[in-house]
Amino acid sequence: MRIIGIDPGTRCLGYGIIDTSGSEAVYVSAGAVTCSDKLPMTGRLVRLYAELSRIIAETRPDCAAVETPFFSENARSALAVGKAQAVAILAAANAGLPVFEYPPAKIKAHISGFGASDKDQVSRMVVLQLGLSQAPSPADASDALACALCHLQEMQTSAVINRNSNP
Amino acid sequence: MRIIGIDPGTRCLGYGIIDTSGSEAVYVSAGAVTCSDKLPMTGRLVRLYAELSRIIAETRPDCAAVETPFFSENARSALAVGKAQAVAILAAANAGLPVFEYPPAKIKAHISGFGASDKDQVSRMVVLQLGLSQAPSPADASDALACALCHLQEMQTSAVINRNSNP
Repeated sequence: MRIIGIDPGTRCLGYGIIDTSGSEAVYVSAGAVTCSDKLPMTGRLVRLYAELSRIIAETRPDCAAVETPFFSENARSALAVGKAQAVAILAAANAGLPVFEYPPAKIKAHISGFGASDKDQVSRMVVLQLGLSQAPSPADASDALACALCHLQEMQTSAVINRNSNP
Repeated sequence: MRIIGIDPGTRCLGYGIIDTSGSEAVYVSAGAVTCSDKLPMTGRLVRLYAELSRIIAETRPDCAAVETPFFSENARSALAVGKAQAVAILAAANAGLPVFEYPPAKIKAHISGFGASDKDQVSRMVVLQLGLSQAPSPADASDALACALCHLQEMQTSAVINRNSNP
């Protein structure tokens, strides 16, 4: 099973891909699609959608885990966040992938045991859990891997619950 | 020249298509793609994108005019509005159409002479300008036609300005 984690933004969209081998997570790749501030919003959305679609076609994940905050600082930034989320969801769903959404607090709680971890802690836990020599850069790529790991743990938890309730 | 106007929403996405004949606007069609409240957001975005892409492929407009508010009531609703806007922009841009964005106040000002018109006034002006016997339903379809008419007037104004500055 291959999972692509996505941390959507209209300036920088992070992605991180992991394979599952038994209960272990194996790092595949991570990175980010960036857009110049000078590019108008329409151009950004088109670029992010095209690049993400290309990455999905090349790496062929089985499902997508998207970091989707429910809230934002203000309505103006929320409009942009919503657009970035839609790009990620559409690129994955239009490629035929089931899409799972996780709010940031859930990802942080999964990855480091409590919901209020800072970005550095999340990044260190990603390095630890995937046995990397250093945190993937930029931070959005690291956050995307955290989202993929969160989905893996969520699936494993569901599997254990199902096993225990259907012995 | 054929223009598709789009009023994006995640529950109801209105569209309205007009042809330009000289300086006149000719009604082609209008309607809305609706989603059940029970459908999760991912399913809605996929349905709206697919339906809008189908409408664009069938009606072959030359450009798209999308109503895009800059603000929203609150951050939570802004996330949904942003997603709906991204669907409209991506479906049009991925079909090769140039995309133009208009805030609601500009559409209202264009269509009825001042920015604070209510929905009823906009709808009546759409009926009048396109010589319709009644307002297209739902209101989102009427708003989408207003957006298309706004783009037509914007283009005509630019053409006059260009003619006058390059005699």
